[in-house]
Amino acid sequence: MSLWPLFNPASVAVVGASATPGKAGDAMMRSLAGLPGRLHPVNPRGGHIAGLRAYPSVTGIPESVDLAVLVVPPAAVPAALEECGQAGVRAAVICAGGFAESGAAGIELQERVRAIARAHGIRVLGPNTSGFMNPSAGVAANFLPGVSELRPGPAAFVAQSGGVNLALSFLAAAEGLGLRLGVGLGNAVDVGFHHVLDHLADDEGCRVVGLHVEGVTEGRALCEAVDRLSARKPVVALKVGRADVGDFARSHTGALTGDYALTRAALAQAGAVVADDPTELVDAMRALAARRVRPRARPGIGLVTGQAGPGLIIADTLRGSGVSLPELADATTRRLGELLPPLTYQRNPVDTGRPAETFADVVAAVAADPGVAALVIHALDEPGALDPVAAVKAVPDTLPVLYASGGPAPILDTRGQELSALGVPLFRSPDRAARAARALITDATTRHRLSRTAEGSDGAALAADVRPRPSHSPVGGGGGGASGEAADAGDRAPDEYGAKAVLAAAGIRVPEGRACADREQAGRALLELGGPVVVKILDASVTHKSDHGGVRTGVRTQDDLGVALDALDGLAARLRIRPRYLVERQAPPGPELIVGGLRDPAFGPVVLLALGGVGVELAPDPILRLAPLSRADAEEMAGSLPAPLLAGYRGAPPVDVDAVADVLLAAAAILTSRTDIAELDINPLRLTPEGPVALDALIVGGRQSSRKDTDD
Amino acid sequence: MSLWPLFNPASVAVVGASATPGKAGDAMMRSLAGLPGRLHPVNPRGGHIAGLRAYPSVTGIPESVDLAVLVVPPAAVPAALEECGQAGVRAAVICAGGFAESGAAGIELQERVRAIARAHGIRVLGPNTSGFMNPSAGVAANFLPGVSELRPGPAAFVAQSGGVNLALSFLAAAEGLGLRLGVGLGNAVDVGFHHVLDHLADDEGCRVVGLHVEGVTEGRALCEAVDRLSARKPVVALKVGRADVGDFARSHTGALTGDYALTRAALAQAGAVVADDPTELVDAMRALAARRVRPRARPGIGLVTGQAGPGLIIADTLRGSGVSLPELADATTRRLGELLPPLTYQRNPVDTGRPAETFADVVAAVAADPGVAALVIHALDEPGALDPVAAVKAVPDTLPVLYASGGPAPILDTRGQELSALGVPLFRSPDRAARAARALITDATTRHRLSRTAEGSDGAALAADVRPRPSHSPVGGGGGGASGEAADAGDRAPDEYGAKAVLAAAGIRVPEGRACADREQAGRALLELGGPVVVKILDASVTHKSDHGGVRTGVRTQDDLGVALDALDGLAARLRIRPRYLVERQAPPGPELIVGGLRDPAFGPVVLLALGGVGVELAPDPILRLAPLSRADAEEMAGSLPAPLLAGYRGAPPVDVDAVADVLLAAAAILTSRTDIAELDINPLRLTPEGPVALDALIVGGRQSSRKDTDD
Repeated sequence: MSLWPLFNPASVAVVGASATPGKAGDAMMRSLAGLPGRLHPVNPRGGHIAGLRAYPSVTGIPESVDLAVLVVPPAAVPAALEECGQAGVRAAVICAGGFAESGAAGIELQERVRAIARAHGIRVLGPNTSGFMNPSAGVAANFLPGVSELRPGPAAFVAQSGGVNLALSFLAAAEGLGLRLGVGLGNAVDVGFHHVLDHLADDEGCRVVGLHVEGVTEGRALCEAVDRLSARKPVVALKVGRADVGDFARSHTGALTGDYALTRAALAQAGAVVADDPTELVDAMRALAARRVRPRARPGIGLVTGQAGPGLIIADTLRGSGVSLPELADATTRRLGELLPPLTYQRNPVDTGRPAETFADVVAAVAADPGVAALVIHALDEPGALDPVAAVKAVPDTLPVLYASGGPAPILDTRGQELSALGVPLFRSPDRAARAARALITDATTRHRLSRTAEGSDGAALAADVRPRPSHSPVGGGGGGASGEAADAGDRAPDEYGAKAVLAAAGIRVPEGRACADREQAGRALLELGGPVVVKILDASVTHKSDHGGVRTGVRTQDDLGVALDALDGLAARLRIRPRYLVERQAPPGPELIVGGLRDPAFGPVVLLALGGVGVELAPDPILRLAPLSRADAEEMAGSLPAPLLAGYRGAPPVDVDAVADVLLAAAAILTSRTDIAELDINPLRLTPEGPVALDALIVGGRQSSRKDTDD
Repeated sequence: MSLWPLFNPASVAVVGASATPGKAGDAMMRSLAGLPGRLHPVNPRGGHIAGLRAYPSVTGIPESVDLAVLVVPPAAVPAALEECGQAGVRAAVICAGGFAESGAAGIELQERVRAIARAHGIRVLGPNTSGFMNPSAGVAANFLPGVSELRPGPAAFVAQSGGVNLALSFLAAAEGLGLRLGVGLGNAVDVGFHHVLDHLADDEGCRVVGLHVEGVTEGRALCEAVDRLSARKPVVALKVGRADVGDFARSHTGALTGDYALTRAALAQAGAVVADDPTELVDAMRALAARRVRPRARPGIGLVTGQAGPGLIIADTLRGSGVSLPELADATTRRLGELLPPLTYQRNPVDTGRPAETFADVVAAVAADPGVAALVIHALDEPGALDPVAAVKAVPDTLPVLYASGGPAPILDTRGQELSALGVPLFRSPDRAARAARALITDATTRHRLSRTAEGSDGAALAADVRPRPSHSPVGGGGGGASGEAADAGDRAPDEYGAKAVLAAAGIRVPEGRACADREQAGRALLELGGPVVVKILDASVTHKSDHGGVRTGVRTQDDLGVALDALDGLAARLRIRPRYLVERQAPPGPELIVGGLRDPAFGPVVLLALGGVGVELAPDPILRLAPLSRADAEEMAGSLPAPLLAGYRGAPPVDVDAVADVLLAAAAILTSRTDIAELDINPLRLTPEGPVALDALIVGGRQSSRKDTDD
């Protein structure tokens, strides 16, 4: 059902309208005073409010009402909404708090609201929101004074918090970025992120969208909407909840996901540029609203500076976050040599020294360089020496340009307007320009990744992504008959042998091995496999085998084996389990990773890649993505491992990114196809000369119902 | 020699003054037009410039000149400066580039300038700078147009780059922070950071100082000046060069220092608040110029919000960087219960819901809480519902308050002025207020640490800091006579046994052990020490013993020993060295650290603490400090280890921070007292139940002359 009547109402009723200054019902009437459509105050006492006739009830309004704005206490909301339903109102904003955010009674009240809205087909924004602003339609349905002064423009905000919607809208306005739509979702009893995002996807007037996310229960729906929206216009997202990372870091392996890290990863995967704070969000939106960088794998920034010092800050910020300032082509360098005095730095950044009349020519030369996908200019305002407008006009319309400057505020205000008219945003500090430029590049690389996903050859069908490699199946040897164990994890965990059978079936290499019911079978396994082998206790209930002394490596002879089995038998006795053994060919050494999978209640299946071995808690944060993965996603994950590891760590060969990506795709495929598997943990995945091998595997069964990720 | 004639000249000559619009000599004349003292253009053609008589030479000016501003090409500088010297000019600014930054000829030119300045006792700012601004004295000695519009105020900038000085000064001005002094040092042939910082320490009108550092050769002098200055007023510093971290991360152990990380750590150690970017620098300076937080170990922020969403962003930013939002006292909570509706969040942050007439009372209640050392208020501008001035007036003058808001720009401009008059800075985005609040807290905790250093009991004499613990000296056993080996490292490296003797003498525990010249001595050592022992090849030339198979652990019997010695003899044969052995009692297991020390060419002796064991390259950046260390420095270093490690990692007990601090103090004392030691590497330092033990030690000899860190 369309959100048009909500955001573009021809007639609005304010339920709880008031003439008492300071009351929300008064503030709302003042905000809506400029409404081009009809405005109807509703107040049980009737009379007149703000010069308009007040009706005792919405049902008394003698025309159809598109939108009712409810500025009444929470307890009065159900009755008011019911009346709206009877009056045929199509949409409502509920400002009051005191609903699901405030305990059991509030949750019940919110459910009543939901039921009434559903029964009457009313789209509801809120409760617990200050409302929304749609300046180009003249609708300021928000009780904060000042909202009617917000000017129309290309930017939409969809904020979980009504207060943040306002803070962002005003912050954008202060930077000259006008507002298409500002929405505070509040408790989102009906209208959620994905509804507004889909609305904005179809809104031609909206050219960039900013999201503010605190915590979501429908993470998967949010990401799918971001995916649809970002295909059509840039999306920048801010996730609050960094401080959760403390708890996050204390958790373990498969549970190494935090709301904060997961949400940010999922939003980025879906196509959003993820910002670190509101200032960066707005700066990124200003840059992206102007011109986007054409999608490519590694677009480069050309940087022209009138003063080397601020230019160095920009270059440092960009390089420090992995953005390329490519070397310029010979033709560019030659041209710069003609334009600039010999002692200036002419590579990239290109420093002009004190700007002269050639400044625009220098800008034009750098803009024309084939490796330059976007241009950043930093020059302090220096009338007489430098004309910013002429410099920007020297750049083709299609190339994104960010202009950073400093100088007296009134002059910069004028420059900002002049440059804005040319589609170029002005930034007043070098760091903010640099972060905005980084956002342009992130947007372009993200679209490049998503375009690869969309190409049939690469990831159209998930199954096609999983290219099984020759693998030693644990089922293939003399152990026989164990494969059936792993067919369906059901509600219980398979043992390691069963878990590895699942991995092997998905194309993940596991060590050749035998499940052995007794010492005699173990002895035969050693004979067949040859030494050295690893002997492990085999029991689904023993999860930290190494810590318990349940893993014996370097077993070469039957004597070694006897010693090892004695130890395992002792362990089994202590744990009161019947001793069974897993005998496996010992893998060659190599760096170790962790590949995990789990089902997040909000986001559904999630694949995780982390450093393995000792020090998990001290290592960098794990890399997270939602499943299904495209091959581009998987390659990006593997490529995000620490650079020293990728390059070949302590004598190890460089990491085979393709092979790790294969494992990630296979893990994702297991999660999406085997809804009976709740959790998957390959720890470690060892990177051997023969490829990645899952040395240990844990699968936790237990169907988890998730609206989005199960088909059954 | 005082910088007063440089920054507060009564008479100024502009050498290279011009009447041609666009030329630097014209721009400089325009900037200086408002000079309250006498202004004299100097131009070989004479005549009049800007209505003033132009002299062909400085020597022709018929009065004494305090400051000469040279706006001439580089080649003309020596002659012009020589004339200044003959004319008795006391200070000069040299704007031209083309000196040491531009190759051999430029270096020579700069040395000529240095010699002339020294010969005549002229203080020189530059070359390669746009100049400086001192608005309260009416001196805008800078060729950038617009500098004369900068208003006086409490903030001084000392920037390595003339362009950054300007960018920061204008950025501050745009935020309402006025300028005391803005200096671009340029090539600093004479006037360096420490001179200007000492000048500012004595300048009562300067209330906060911002530094911009690219790279320094006199790092130790800079830090000593920051130490002196920060005792009197707050200092905020920005270091450029983050992108160096890539090279940094690829280097190894003792060389695990990067210019960027080391400079930031050294500046923080000396008392500066280190900012991440220019925006944060200016925001921190605004907060610190208003009111500082009283020094204490862990001051808490009280946060009052009119809207929960932006408040959550502030709380998240603060908590995410380790700033405490303490629980409020019972009395505060009771008072808030009276003032606020029941459903609002009343702990800390304190959310008022839609602000009402009680807002100022809420602010007063939180401000009065004993755990609140500074207050942050976020409230969107809501006339009628909330009066920011009344709210701020409810806070005692002594408590630092930061106010964050959003709303139409003109209203916020007015609010900013009203609040500024009350000593409260206004921030227009929640994240910027949060980062400024973090700076207030960092400043307070830094001063607390420095005050502990200043207290005699804790760190007045460095030697007193090193409290020797009972330690097994490698010299104490039957090995005998080896201690002399380590008395002076001279220009060569001692072997591990000698290096450990140095550590033990400084109070660092090392394993009990024997240096053995042959197999028989090794056998006797095993007998004396008892098993298990570790047997290592003992030769200063073998630095990565483990990688070469030069370390054998778990040696219990003479048979084990024979096998181990055979292996070591084989290694010795391959390396063509005479086999000697180190036999040591094997230490119990535990987490491992690295403690290192080296002499940086710019900063002198540096102590390093890092995670040991595998994964050095993947672990967090090492923790760096300049030696000598105070006990507070050492405790802060140890306390900065990753939280999971500190808390007791994988079953290990919590880290004994005091004991690790002892080792760091001892390492620092070795570096400062033994100038014959160039580099020191304890890798690993194992944290055992008996305390930290240096399992391996490397000392690199070789006197390095360093103006600052040697007394000989």
